Amino acid sequence: MAKQFEELNPPIRTLMGPGPSNVHPRVLRALSAPCIGHLDPDFLRIMDETQELLRFVFQTSNRFTIPVSGTGSAAMETCFVNIVEPGDRVVIGVNGVFGTRMVDNARRLGAEVVPVEAPWGEPISEKKMEGSLKHGPVKIVAVVHAETSTGVRQPLEEVERMAHRAGALFLVDTVTSLGGTEVRVDDWGIDAVYSGTQKCLSCPPGLAPLSFGSRALQVLDSRKHPVPSWYLDMGMVKKYWGSERVYHHTAPINMIYGIRESLRIIYEEGLEARFQRHFDNHLALVEGLEALGLQMHVAEGLRLPMLNTVRVPAGVDDFKIRKALLDQFQIEIGGGLGVLQGKVWRVGLMGHSSTPENVIYFLGALGALLKANGAAKDAGAGVSVATEHYGVSR
Amino acid sequence: MAKQFEELNPPIRTLMGPGPSNVHPRVLRALSAPCIGHLDPDFLRIMDETQELLRFVFQTSNRFTIPVSGTGSAAMETCFVNIVEPGDRVVIGVNGVFGTRMVDNARRLGAEVVPVEAPWGEPISEKKMEGSLKHGPVKIVAVVHAETSTGVRQPLEEVERMAHRAGALFLVDTVTSLGGTEVRVDDWGIDAVYSGTQKCLSCPPGLAPLSFGSRALQVLDSRKHPVPSWYLDMGMVKKYWGSERVYHHTAPINMIYGIRESLRIIYEEGLEARFQRHFDNHLALVEGLEALGLQMHVAEGLRLPMLNTVRVPAGVDDFKIRKALLDQFQIEIGGGLGVLQGKVWRVGLMGHSSTPENVIYFLGALGALLKANGAAKDAGAGVSVATEHYGVSR
Repeated sequence: MAKQFEELNPPIRTLMGPGPSNVHPRVLRALSAPCIGHLDPDFLRIMDETQELLRFVFQTSNRFTIPVSGTGSAAMETCFVNIVEPGDRVVIGVNGVFGTRMVDNARRLGAEVVPVEAPWGEPISEKKMEGSLKHGPVKIVAVVHAETSTGVRQPLEEVERMAHRAGALFLVDTVTSLGGTEVRVDDWGIDAVYSGTQKCLSCPPGLAPLSFGSRALQVLDSRKHPVPSWYLDMGMVKKYWGSERVYHHTAPINMIYGIRESLRIIYEEGLEARFQRHFDNHLALVEGLEALGLQMHVAEGLRLPMLNTVRVPAGVDDFKIRKALLDQFQIEIGGGLGVLQGKVWRVGLMGHSSTPENVIYFLGALGALLKANGAAKDAGAGVSVATEHYGVSR
Repeated sequence: MAKQFEELNPPIRTLMGPGPSNVHPRVLRALSAPCIGHLDPDFLRIMDETQELLRFVFQTSNRFTIPVSGTGSAAMETCFVNIVEPGDRVVIGVNGVFGTRMVDNARRLGAEVVPVEAPWGEPISEKKMEGSLKHGPVKIVAVVHAETSTGVRQPLEEVERMAHRAGALFLVDTVTSLGGTEVRVDDWGIDAVYSGTQKCLSCPPGLAPLSFGSRALQVLDSRKHPVPSWYLDMGMVKKYWGSERVYHHTAPINMIYGIRESLRIIYEEGLEARFQRHFDNHLALVEGLEALGLQMHVAEGLRLPMLNTVRVPAGVDDFKIRKALLDQFQIEIGGGLGVLQGKVWRVGLMGHSSTPENVIYFLGALGALLKANGAAKDAGAGVSVATEHYGVSR
């Protein structure tokens, strides 16, 4: 008999890893609206609104603010492939997987890359960054605002000043920060910025918000060589998203329905309230984890509210705990990557996943598993502290 | 007061343009299933099944058969960026927009492109193709199986033989043909092939089926330079879709739910029955259009069953008719592109849109509009003929 493919019935998970986060039911509903054409007048209006809402979350007036038709990494590549030409010097902060990825990306395009390194879990030192900018013209200074692999926040103000003093464009990866903490593209002088949908926007993965300011567009317009990528050539894509409406590639219609709805939810909640919610749940989680005897990997003040790296206690099997969380509690968290493999857990509280319910449920499950593995005395200590946190702060 | 963004309520269109086609309600429902992680064991199983189903529609046993995380054009670029290196000679059939696009894409990557041209609406001549293969080594011979801009089908057998005699890889664009007419990747000796989701698969746009055979993978593995694109580097992507499961970029989870369901529907219908359905509806449409006094643009025998180009009658305003179809009847058809602008209409009968209901409804609407514009005597002639076609053939 021929093979049967069964009805799609994915499990219902509590997504507390490094993304995707749980998607709001309204976004799922929007995804399933009837598909229409990519040049339909009704779709063009949806595109315009999506751009308006993206400008709102990026806090920018950049006209060229769009969702790229790919995941966050496609938008990273969009930045480099449109701006960099062979031989350009590019200075990149590297303190985790995503800085490393930028280096790889820029090198493939023939850039001369100057990596500025920091230990995984610490921000890039401004002094080191300054040193790397002294040796001739630099096309781009790029950093990761929220390193998803380490949980560290990169302060941007000083790097921005250095980048512009050096005549470089300032490029920032906000894949994990956008929608969960302040990202002020205009106030912070960011020239090119990108993000992803599956983190704090709580839309499924597949689109990547991107914004280019006027300096970045000028560089694009005055390139010597054509953009090596056809698909990601923003010179053409902007004629579709702009008033010309020139067909380039068929836009991912239903995914754009989805991101519009996720942005609309953010608009209704308000940025301030949303950031406060992320921060408050982060505090409750950290207090709970510490009550269970665990240690955070990143120093206080530099921790990301949406991505919490906590050290795996000595003697505890990283994978066994994560597997038990998934199998017994339907909770997904992330393991460490690269040098942090087996050493940290990455606990996401992103967008729709950032709730007191999730914090308390996760602390309960983790406490029980740690106790069962001889790594915690009081299984309920985390829950008690977090519950108290919410009781007091509300 | 702050701007309000209203609830998403796209109109319900009858999509009979060059894509997207109407999406089956089962696919829309699958899109809205809860998102899970890209390394979740349940998602890995969904990936495996999606690959199996893709091999089924491509009629291939190629292990490396995946949906690329972008639209059809991203998969086109995936083929060129992974196979071509600077200086490689690439022979490309150009008889419409999508051949032209391949040329642009390959040139950006430093290929020496040899275009083999034919008038828009005719296939590439095999003799001309042969001539272009006489001047030294060729890396790729590429043609478009179903030119969406003209409605012509490219016969592949002879081109395949020439390509392989010349030691080149045979690359085929099946964006519009896959799922609507025979595409036999293994039997036809195709080394690299790509498609899109929004045509005869009737899934929303945003993913792009791709398959590489062993020769293409060998070329990829023995490259001199790294693949210039990080996002589309199949050397890395195949470690995620293969047994290693190495994280590359976050897969577009819900879109993969969607394509799996659309492929599952095809699997249930069966390829033979599906192709027959497309062909039969195409015949009914053509008979109806001719009964209205219209002329097809492509010669019989070379017409695509899923994309019908019909000439705009003399004295009729192309745009006015399309606008009336959309505004009064909620029917989307396509206008001509490039040299065919204003000269043809492109009437799609793709996947879930290929139904007797759509054929009859469209012929009725078009007949009425043509009559109102003085371009048809009998508004109902098309409907009569098509209805009779179905009555007899059923």
